[in-house]
Amino acid sequence: MDQSELDNVRALLRSKPRPIGWAERRQRLDAIGSVWAVADDVTLECVDVNGLDGEWSIAPGSDASHVLMFFHGGGYCSGSIVSHRRMVTEAARAARMRTLAVAYRLAPEHPFPAAYDDALTAWRFLRNQSIPASRLVIGGDSAGAGLAVALIRRLRDAHEQLPACAWLVSPWMDLTMSGSTFASKDAVDPIIHKTYLNELADAYLPPGMDRKDPRISPLYADLRSFPPLLIQVGSAETLLDDATRFASAAGAADVPVTLEIWPHMIHAWHLWNAQLEPGRRALASAGAFIRAHVDVRS
Amino acid sequence: MDQSELDNVRALLRSKPRPIGWAERRQRLDAIGSVWAVADDVTLECVDVNGLDGEWSIAPGSDASHVLMFFHGGGYCSGSIVSHRRMVTEAARAARMRTLAVAYRLAPEHPFPAAYDDALTAWRFLRNQSIPASRLVIGGDSAGAGLAVALIRRLRDAHEQLPACAWLVSPWMDLTMSGSTFASKDAVDPIIHKTYLNELADAYLPPGMDRKDPRISPLYADLRSFPPLLIQVGSAETLLDDATRFASAAGAADVPVTLEIWPHMIHAWHLWNAQLEPGRRALASAGAFIRAHVDVRS
Repeated sequence: MDQSELDNVRALLRSKPRPIGWAERRQRLDAIGSVWAVADDVTLECVDVNGLDGEWSIAPGSDASHVLMFFHGGGYCSGSIVSHRRMVTEAARAARMRTLAVAYRLAPEHPFPAAYDDALTAWRFLRNQSIPASRLVIGGDSAGAGLAVALIRRLRDAHEQLPACAWLVSPWMDLTMSGSTFASKDAVDPIIHKTYLNELADAYLPPGMDRKDPRISPLYADLRSFPPLLIQVGSAETLLDDATRFASAAGAADVPVTLEIWPHMIHAWHLWNAQLEPGRRALASAGAFIRAHVDVRS
Repeated sequence: MDQSELDNVRALLRSKPRPIGWAERRQRLDAIGSVWAVADDVTLECVDVNGLDGEWSIAPGSDASHVLMFFHGGGYCSGSIVSHRRMVTEAARAARMRTLAVAYRLAPEHPFPAAYDDALTAWRFLRNQSIPASRLVIGGDSAGAGLAVALIRRLRDAHEQLPACAWLVSPWMDLTMSGSTFASKDAVDPIIHKTYLNELADAYLPPGMDRKDPRISPLYADLRSFPPLLIQVGSAETLLDDATRFASAAGAADVPVTLEIWPHMIHAWHLWNAQLEPGRRALASAGAFIRAHVDVRS
């Protein structure tokens, strides 16, 4: 690893004071996520996802008959198609399939179950395009990974067909924030701290909702019959424990699990893949995982 | 997965009463490990590993200039070159390199540190053949995985060069037996139970030795600066928690970690790869991991 690349990303994150308020936070995540532009050879197309804003992306060599649907992170309160465009479009290249980025509704304007319902809306949209579930993959980072797992659980409970596999980056899996790495990794994580997540959880959850509800904290969900999962997390993350505990829980429930822990990487480092080589390698690994599982089932 | 294949292995394990006494246990593990013969196209060669019995294996397409050194499992009290020959020789094929199986000394005749010292003896033997450490990989299953990690720790502490990566199957990482899956997986694990492991630990450890000593319980070791680790474990194992907790500990210490949890697989299922397709797939995955890491560094 080229340490200077990671130092540059850390410097980018430090370059302005932490934003205050929802509008400023959203603007800031859009800005730091789009510092490096989308590659010239990627084609983007806006799409109405049954009332939600969506964006298709396709890279050279991608197969349009397979789709990776991606839910961005941002703690259910920020993040957008813009903030995650570089990450999602390069995932299209690595997985050699189309991607669909979905602008689900955000809190605090739209608390739970808005995002949870929007995830299902987006899935229905794809299924109504006559794409078999076995050609669909669901991905997400951080809160988006939580949404991805919540959606799969909802489909499983409804006895619907499931996606071929799922790809979870730096997942936020436990809104009780009981992970031990909130303390042990606090000093090295430049993005995610417990007080910040508590603020986000308060904004997302209706008053009185149990923070262990499996629709928002998949760590406490019954995970049986889930499709194969790839979980990627950095070792410089306060959410490291969310990823490792979720991997353990899913594995114990007889789910095929691959967990990758990437040394020194920070929360959702794939975002900065343009200038961070481990971001590109992590996308390549995710792409290989996805292709192996989609090919098997299609 | 073809359920009947796994059922056949479970039937094999049930086909005789559990052995009693060390001699009978050793005989039994040799017998169940060698039910399926080594493939015809594998070449075996006995070797004197500085006083220990060893065996080279090479499969068609294997590169003799790279070596996977493998420590068999058996709770430090049983297991041999014979019991693990099918597993090790097929690992040679998957990793496309030579393997060296090492018959380290067994307890209770030879308690700690006999095996621990023999692991170092075997490493020195390889290094004295002028093979760069970057072309060496250390693997092991169960107690053998514990030995592999203990050896790497010892080399790291001595500021010696480290192997390119390590491959750990169903590792026994905590001789205090504090894992939660000893209870939750007891009914589905046909091989490993807490009382049995306690007997093995008592046989291996000199009186009064702390069961958290990092030379025997790598879960409690400082793991910093370790090479990349692939950890493979089955979901039907009482040792599942040993694998997941060790993955978490190594990842938190900034070690590159890949953890694979294989649904329904039992302890060291690779042993029965001849008739168990997930055994072959797990070996293929390990081979790909090893080749990726050896190529990078050589």
